[in-house]
Parts: sequence; C-alpha cells; structure tokens
Amino acid sequence: METQRGITIHATQDGKEHFGEYGNSFSLLDYLSKHTPFTLQAPCGGKGRCGKCKIRIIGGTPSPVTDTERTLLHPDELSAGIRLACMVNPETDLSISLEGEKKVQGNKSFRFSHPLPVDGSLHTLVLELVPPSLEDQRSDHSRLLSALATEGLEVPTPLLLDLPQVLREGKWRVTLIAQKNRVLSILPSTLVEGQSSNPASRIFGVAVDIGTTTVAAYLFDLYTGVHIDSQSELNAQGAFGGDVISRIQYALESLSNLRRLQEKILTQIDELIHRMAIRTGIHPAQICMACIVGNPTMIHLTLGLNPKYIAEAPFIPVTTEPLFVPTHELGLSLSAGGIVRIPPAVSAYVGSDILAGVIASGMATSTMRSALLIDIGTNGEIVLGIGDRFIACSTAAGPAFEGAQITCGMGGVAGAIDGVIRRNLPVLAEGLQGPDSTPCPTHPLSFTTILDAPPVGFCGAGIVDLLAILLETGMVDETGRMLSQEEGKRQGHPLAEWLITYDDEPAFLLVPADKSGTGMPILLTQQDVREIQLAKAAIAAGIRTLLQKANLTFDEIRTLYLAGGFGNYLNPRSAIRIGLIPKELEGKIQSIGNASGLGASLALLSEKTFSLFQQVRERTSYIELSSSPEFQELYVEEMMFPS
Amino acid sequence: METQRGITIHATQDGKEHFGEYGNSFSLLDYLSKHTPFTLQAPCGGKGRCGKCKIRIIGGTPSPVTDTERTLLHPDELSAGIRLACMVNPETDLSISLEGEKKVQGNKSFRFSHPLPVDGSLHTLVLELVPPSLEDQRSDHSRLLSALATEGLEVPTPLLLDLPQVLREGKWRVTLIAQKNRVLSILPSTLVEGQSSNPASRIFGVAVDIGTTTVAAYLFDLYTGVHIDSQSELNAQGAFGGDVISRIQYALESLSNLRRLQEKILTQIDELIHRMAIRTGIHPAQICMACIVGNPTMIHLTLGLNPKYIAEAPFIPVTTEPLFVPTHELGLSLSAGGIVRIPPAVSAYVGSDILAGVIASGMATSTMRSALLIDIGTNGEIVLGIGDRFIACSTAAGPAFEGAQITCGMGGVAGAIDGVIRRNLPVLAEGLQGPDSTPCPTHPLSFTTILDAPPVGFCGAGIVDLLAILLETGMVDETGRMLSQEEGKRQGHPLAEWLITYDDEPAFLLVPADKSGTGMPILLTQQDVREIQLAKAAIAAGIRTLLQKANLTFDEIRTLYLAGGFGNYLNPRSAIRIGLIPKELEGKIQSIGNASGLGASLALLSEKTFSLFQQVRERTSYIELSSSPEFQELYVEEMMFPS
Repeated sequence: METQRGITIHATQDGKEHFGEYGNSFSLLDYLSKHTPFTLQAPCGGKGRCGKCKIRIIGGTPSPVTDTERTLLHPDELSAGIRLACMVNPETDLSISLEGEKKVQGNKSFRFSHPLPVDGSLHTLVLELVPPSLEDQRSDHSRLLSALATEGLEVPTPLLLDLPQVLREGKWRVTLIAQKNRVLSILPSTLVEGQSSNPASRIFGVAVDIGTTTVAAYLFDLYTGVHIDSQSELNAQGAFGGDVISRIQYALESLSNLRRLQEKILTQIDELIHRMAIRTGIHPAQICMACIVGNPTMIHLTLGLNPKYIAEAPFIPVTTEPLFVPTHELGLSLSAGGIVRIPPAVSAYVGSDILAGVIASGMATSTMRSALLIDIGTNGEIVLGIGDRFIACSTAAGPAFEGAQITCGMGGVAGAIDGVIRRNLPVLAEGLQGPDSTPCPTHPLSFTTILDAPPVGFCGAGIVDLLAILLETGMVDETGRMLSQEEGKRQGHPLAEWLITYDDEPAFLLVPADKSGTGMPILLTQQDVREIQLAKAAIAAGIRTLLQKANLTFDEIRTLYLAGGFGNYLNPRSAIRIGLIPKELEGKIQSIGNASGLGASLALLSEKTFSLFQQVRERTSYIELSSSPEFQELYVEEMMFPS
Repeated sequence: METQRGITIHATQDGKEHFGEYGNSFSLLDYLSKHTPFTLQAPCGGKGRCGKCKIRIIGGTPSPVTDTERTLLHPDELSAGIRLACMVNPETDLSISLEGEKKVQGNKSFRFSHPLPVDGSLHTLVLELVPPSLEDQRSDHSRLLSALATEGLEVPTPLLLDLPQVLREGKWRVTLIAQKNRVLSILPSTLVEGQSSNPASRIFGVAVDIGTTTVAAYLFDLYTGVHIDSQSELNAQGAFGGDVISRIQYALESLSNLRRLQEKILTQIDELIHRMAIRTGIHPAQICMACIVGNPTMIHLTLGLNPKYIAEAPFIPVTTEPLFVPTHELGLSLSAGGIVRIPPAVSAYVGSDILAGVIASGMATSTMRSALLIDIGTNGEIVLGIGDRFIACSTAAGPAFEGAQITCGMGGVAGAIDGVIRRNLPVLAEGLQGPDSTPCPTHPLSFTTILDAPPVGFCGAGIVDLLAILLETGMVDETGRMLSQEEGKRQGHPLAEWLITYDDEPAFLLVPADKSGTGMPILLTQQDVREIQLAKAAIAAGIRTLLQKANLTFDEIRTLYLAGGFGNYLNPRSAIRIGLIPKELEGKIQSIGNASGLGASLALLSEKTFSLFQQVRERTSYIELSSSPEFQELYVEEMMFPS
C-alpha cells in the first residue's frame, strides 16, 4: 500500500535551513510559525489584513494568488515571487525564503558605559569535598550537604541534575553562588578559576525587556555591575499578531496556542542568552539571575498565564505582583538553581516596563517637580509624576508608530528610514520635473536610514518626520486629507510633484522603486496618514487627560521623558508638528532610549531597586481611559492635526 | 515531485489504537516504546535475548523471521504471527497488536481496611473575595494576597496558572489548602462544597511505590487517612530492560534516553493518578500531595537524575537525601502547588522502598529483638535489625523471581501460575501415561493461577513451588541438574513422564499447549533452574553475610519479614526447600505484602513518619557485598540446592 506522501516545505532565513512536512497546516504562515524557529511578522495575526508576512517562492507550486494579495502586494512584488504566507497553501513541495527582519540592528539603546550599582547580596563559597570510595559511599548530594552543614544553605532540586558532572569536573572542588540561604549555582572550581583568579567576578545576570515588537537582553557582571553584552530581536511571537490584543485572541483559541506563544518567547530569550554566553565565553551555569520586564500581556504569555481577562472589561490580569520564579520552571538555560525576578505591574495595560521607565528616568526618586514619561511602543503608556505620587494610563494607540499597519512601515532595523528632511528647496526646485518625466528629478526631500543601509521602509520616526513636512507644506491638511495627484499638480509646490495615486487613493512617494533597497517604491498613503492620526490623537489626549486629572498645567511640567526605541529616533519638533506631543512641552523633551531595559538592569543588580518597583507601584493610581469621559472628549479634539 | 511516503504502523493494545509513521526507528520495539503510550516488556532491553517483547502481526509484511526468533519463539507462536518486536522492521505498512500484560491484577496487597494515622499538618481556609470592577482592577493574585494578608501564606507561582478559572468558577469564593505557610491548592468553593459539607474531608494524597517491574499507586484521604483506591501496572520502562542495570545502560546512551525513561514513568504515574481520580469522582487539583518510594535507580530516573555513578564502583547516587519536589517540576497532574515527598535512601542499592518496608514492618519502632526484612523484587534487598541499629545489603539477584529471564516467566498478573502442588499421587498415578500418548493423562501436579485465569506462565512463587517439588522428587538434583527425558523414563517416577526436551536441553512440562491460556506449553527449563539457582544463592548468602557481620545466630532472629509481591505469593516451605531462605528460619517467616507501598502511605499521611525514614537511614549501615570476601565465600556455598 503506497500512496502520495505529504508535502515537504524547505524554508530558509538568514542562511538557516528548515525541512518539514506541511501536514494539515492551515496556511504557510501557520506552518512556519508552528513548525520552524523562523520569525515572520504578521501584525494582523494572519487574517490577510496587514500584508506583512511576505515570503518569496523559490521553487514548487503554491496556491494561486488571491485577491487579498493583489490588494496588499505590489505587482512588482507578485512578479518577483513574493507572496503573503497567510494566503498560501502549497500544491507541491515548496522551497521558500523568509526575507524577514529578525535582527534589530543599530538600536541606539544605552551603552551602559559605567557600571550600574550593585547591592552585594550574592556570596560565593569554595568547597573542597572528600572524593567517594567503597568506604565512603555517601551520595553526591549528601556529601555536599555535610560540607555545607554550618552554612544553612538550601540546594534547590534542579541543581541535582548537573551535580555529578560538576563535582567530577571540578575534581571535588566546587564554587557555590548563593543569595541569602538559597544556592543559585554550583560550578566546577576548575571552570571558574580558569577564567579569573577571583571566581566572584564571574557571576552573571541577564535583564530582559520583552516588548510586543522587540525583545532586548542585557548581560551583566552581577558583582561589578559592568555591562558585558546585549542582544535584541523582533519578538518571535510576531507571526501571531502585531499588538497585544491579537496575541491574546490567538492565545485564547486553545491551550496549545497559549503554550506555543509561551514557548516562542522563552525559546527566543534562551537563544538571546545563549548567544551572549557564547560570544563572551561564559558558561550558562554562570548566569544565576534574570530580571524580566514587559507589558502585562507579554509577562502573562511568558509565564503561560491565561490573558483572557486582560482583554475584557474590567481588564483584570492574573497577577501584577512581584514574582521570583525558579529558572527551571521556565526552562531557561541559566543556572538550574537560578531565579528570574519579575517586577510588579500597575494594571492590565501599565506593566513593569513602564515602572522600569519611571525608575530609569529618575522620576521615582527625584520628586522635586512634576514630570511626564511617555513610552510609545505598541501601546502608548503615559505616567505623570507629581511629588512622590504617580498617575498612569495606557492609550490603545496601536502599533502604527512601530511601523505596523503602515503600507511601507517596518521596525527600527537596518534600512528603515528614521529621518526625513527638506533639502534646500530654492536650489533644488530648479529644473524639477514630476516623477513620470525623465531624467528622473532629484527628490526635494532627503532621508536617513538606520545603519545607512539602502532604504527599505519607514520606521515610526521617519513617518512622523515625513508627515510633519507634508503638513507644513500643505500636502496634507489639518483634517488629515492628502492632496490628490491632480490637486498637487495644480498646486505647483515642488513636493506636489511626488504625489501619486496608489490603490485609488493619494499617496506621497519618497523613494522611487529604482532607488529603494527592495526594488519597490517607498510611499506614505492616505490610509497611513489616518492610522497615524488616530494614534497621535490617543496619545495627545492621554497626556491632557492626566494633566486634567491632576489639575496641572503644562508650565508645571519639568521634563517630558520619551522612552522606547521610537522615542529614541523621534525628532521632537516633528512630534510637536503633527500634534503627537503638545506644543506647550517644546524644549522640555528628553529622549531616554530603552528606559525599560535600564530599569530591568537596575532591578537585576540591586534588590533595593527591585523593591522600589513595588513602592512606585503602590504610589501609582491607574486611570482607565476606556471609561473616562474626559479622555473621549479630548480624543475627538486631538484628532485634528495642528494647523 | 511525488515519492513513496513513510511506512505507517497501526498498533492496538487493550482496545486502544495508535497510528503513526515508522520513520527511521531502529526496530518495532524501538518505535513502540518511543512513539506509543503502550507498554511492552523487554527485560533484555531489546537485545534479542529475553524473548519477551512479543507482538502479533495482524496485517502487512514485516521483515523475515530471524534466527533469534526461531530460537526464542515456539514454532506454534511463529505460525500464529507472533514476533519479537525487537527483531522486526516493517517492509510495508503494518498492523499489529500488543498482547501485553500491562495491568497488574489481583495483587494481594494491603486492603488498608482501617484508616492510617494522620498528623493533621494540613489546614484549610475559605476565602470570600470582592469581585473586580472598573473601580477595583486589582489582579486576581493581588486580590487573593490581600485577603490572605494576615495569614502569611506563600502562593507558589504554578497556582497562578489556574487561578483565574478557579476564582470565577467559585464565584469569588475559594477554598485554600495549606501546609505550614505554603498553599498547596486553591479550589472553587462550589466544587468542594458540592462534594461534602466539610471541604477539609476532600483533600487527597497519593502514595506511589515504583518497582523496577511494577508501579503501584494508592489514593488516600489526607484528613482521615482512609484508603480510597489503588492502581498498579507493570513499569512502563519495561521495554528498556528488566533490571536496573539495563535501564541505566539505556539512560546513559544519550540524554534523550534518560528523558524518555523519565517521561515514561512520570506519564504512567500521572495516568494511574488520573484513573483513580476519575473512578472516585474527585478533581486532580484536590490531590495535594504525593509520596514516592522506590529503589534509588527508579527514583533517579523519575527525577531525571543521572544514574551513571550508581552503576560503577564505588556506586554513588546523585542523592539519597529526603526531597520535597513541587509537583509542577515533575509535571504531575496533581494540584499545581502540590508537593511530592521523596523519602531518603541508604545507598545506591538500598532505597526508600526498603526503608519503607522497615517502617511498615514495625522493625523501625519495635526494637525488642532482632528481625530480618527481605524484599525480593528485581534485586533482593535484606535488612537486619538489631536493637535500634540496622545493617542492610543488596544482592544482585536479578529479576528471575519476577519471572524475567525465565522461559515461561511473567509478572504477578492474571493467569500467572502462583502455586504448584502435588496431587494425591497414589490415586492419580493409576493409568498415567507420558504426554506423548493419547488420551492425554492427568498431570500429577496441579496449580493455581492469579485470579483463577487460564494459565499463561509462571510468576516467581509458582517457579519456586515447582522447583521445590522437582528437587523433592529428584527430577532436579542438588547441583541443579535436571534429568533428561531418557533418564526420566528410566527412573519411572510419575513426574518423570513430564520431562521433555526443549531446545536440546531437559525441561519439565507443567501445562501442555492445549491446556494453556496461550496455546503454548508452559514449562521450566534447565536454563531456568540455573537462573533460579544463581538468584537464590545470592539472597541466601546475603542473609548469612549480614548475620556473620552482626555476630548473630539464626536463633536470635525473632521474625523474617518477606516484603514485596513475590513474598506475598511465596510458599515459605518451598522457599526453604530450594534454599532461598535458610531452614533455620522455618516458622518465623511472615509475609507482609507490599510493605513499600504501606510505608510510602504512612509517610504521605504523617510528617512524623516521613522523618522516621531519615532516622532509620541514619541508624543503618550498608554492607557493599560486591567487595565483601565473606559474601563471595557464602555465595559459592549457597549455590547448591539443599539435599
């Protein structure tokens, strides 16, 4: 009995290969996200709306191109074999490549050039054990415990897994690392002494900031507070949706979906840690501690907790408490006795990442004057500090500023346009012709890209810059309407020459196809402007709502801290021009980069800082914007762009 | 591109079905043990030596019958489609059935008719929580903790996994079960109150005795000490070898083998527990505690600990310490906050199961006169109690008494011959003819089987009975030599008629093919006698070694406790006749059934008993027989059968 065997998929990404049986997967996206380690971003969760899960067909016959793909992909893309993974089913064996943007490069995050403060709660102990013999058959564990008799230390059972190897590799001489009365790691002394004369200086920890879009990990020397290495990547859960709500929806479909999301993020964190360990020549068992921050949904998915009630009123997380989770429970490849610190959160939408920002910015301890913290990631969280009290809210701004749901949007990776500026127009205007005419005219706008790579798309900062220019030049009016190609031609402004029609709507062309890194034009559409308009209104209204609640004026605000990758690249003048940040705060804006990562690092290194999270949390009131009439009113007001 | 798909296996056991791809499995045994939940015993570990891993081919073409199978299987078996799974590779899709002997039925273990003592360290707490609202958005965890504020109880993180459901199912009224300051379980009050007016009476625990051959689980009410249910099965690791050494060898081949052995036993324990929960209508979350005993190898494999150094001199286990392992670490489907108590062991070959026997027998507390405990399982462990001190040893007796490595041997399951007796010979001898003649004569021996099922093979007790008769009647001499068929015929004894030739060696036929439950003859071969001879010598020599070490005579022994399933069925007179137990102990032998299971149950229900394990262990000296010259000498002496 021989019948047709299953269909095989051959996939490649970043030079890595995968072979597997397609089985009865729902779509190629479904297959790739469940059965390969590859990362594919699908902000809409595979519903054929975002057009981001692009793959390239190398060989074999896929199912025919769908109308959805004809709408979401450019004809040039289609003819180059680009398809949306969520729309493709293989008809024969397929060979495909994922061009993906897994790595986050050129992230202008902290350099951590100075050691961070440590509080010295760790201690090390070198033990010399008597080797066993037929006359002394005590078990490895008993031998260790009797050598520890006077120390009163507890040895967690997972440390037993490697104990026989560790004792014998170390020739019965071992180094124990303990915190309070718990042994975190047991290392062969040969290993530690081989690296340094002071074993204490070879104990490490990892701070992790799990963003909905990006995951960043920072390796530290736990004794000195010295920053050793960093790694960041797009969140591997990206194929299951771009925002927390679509991830939650996916998780709620079945318990195995929840487990899959958990496995995706834990495997990714483990890989980031492993990579840093290899690069720096340390053994994972030397990494004894981790501190993980993130928004509550990310923390729930990391711990495998049911996120159902985060997504429905009255928005109740399973936990917002500080947790100490044994590494073994999460299966992370740190020391088997290690501890993962999870700092507390405020509410379902204001997480430990925001508290980390409050702490990293100094707002938690310097309470002289009022300050604002805005973290614009996939959501936009805002904290207002007044004295030693805090008011926090979260706006459902959506991931537009992270490039999701934007036609040519992308994350802050190499080739992303992160700044747009106007050339000296009077000079360049000379001899200008429309994009249809040859020779192709020089574009009146120029741009910068991350890592100076050829342009591939826009990250949030680039979009804000471009939109500010379009508003300033009248290409987009205060209601958000973009001039049509015809209206533009009538207007005669040099920029108007670059207005085109795209999918029957106006769009502004920044990079023609032949100048772009992908061979596709890079443009901002009318629809993109609408997405940004909604997002900026939510954040601006959130800021005003907090100030109203606190009866504060903008004058009383000392500083506006802009946290997150987007805040890092963002041009404050452009942000004010599009009304994302109120004009009244001009001159007070300070970008503080990945403040969540810094806050997590501080809490990793110091128990005192870790407990500061709890103090800040207790001093924080949360405003639920969805039930706030003030917010609704301000949101409508902020919908217009400043004139 | 279409090629031949993989080969599919369709397997059935006990009415359960399995379909799967054969892939590149090493043999059908390898496939079945790795990819199906079915149990197949292969005491030799799949090396083609024991002939136990029989399967029946229902459809499809297997690889041709091997010489090994021609040697180990009867021609009638081969013609009935019986094959050895370790020798078969499929050539096409195969359909097979595993006749297996998974269930252990009719085990005459304790009935636990009286409640066992409990020490009341558990307490319950009913909490009434305020439901959340938009005005009170505290997380489930925070809500619980604030209601617990004054209790100082710790909620282990795994309990958070089900917390949202539990709170909402219980309509914000929950019952907490705690031991000291640790919450073991959180139950919806609706569930507990639905079962009984006193929630405290609905908290359960499981005692588990992991034998190399058999796994037994006992469900108890933790408050009353009442025994609720039991389940036992052959150890699911059986396909990886019949004794601890072959399991260790398998585990050492790769880390994934060790993981597989761990998964096999944990899955099995989980299934036993789950089955008892279903049968008795309780929710697994109501089971808050487990106590697991076993020999050190079984405990290592259950915890996933490296057993390497158990198997090589100087025989060092990873741990012999008492452990408290969160159920979550083992993935058992008890309450997620539950605790598994692992009592301590003495040494690499004297485990918590033996200490459990010492405690269950009363030897640990009644120290008036000296006593012996013998647990004959896959190894034979012996403990001599003198006052409040103990001397213990372990003999590498092998699993012969558990039916392994015996031609028609089997575990103590339905149909196993557990007793053989001589009929009233003078009467029955009349008209007797040899087995070759027709009509078939009545056999001069009769037998009993477990559960009175048709005979299928011998369990240990049956073998000992038969061998005692063969020695008594001169069919086997004191050197262990069995009369040949010719010698037998010459001798004229009615039993001699039943001597046959099997594989060119003498054998004694007890049940002809047409009278057996399998259609195969049931017989005891010369080789089987040799196996028993080695095993009984090891145990008898072990007993004498301990007495010599303690300078005791047999007169000074008050009682010999026989523990284990084998001891249960064993006829003490037969045991003395074959020299397994010294004649001097006649009249002092007391079978105490599954004493390990009782000891585990006592330690489950009482912390005091649990700590008694540690006390007994500290008062126990271990004698390593492999390096004892006395033992070597006595072993040679005991090799002969008593005349």
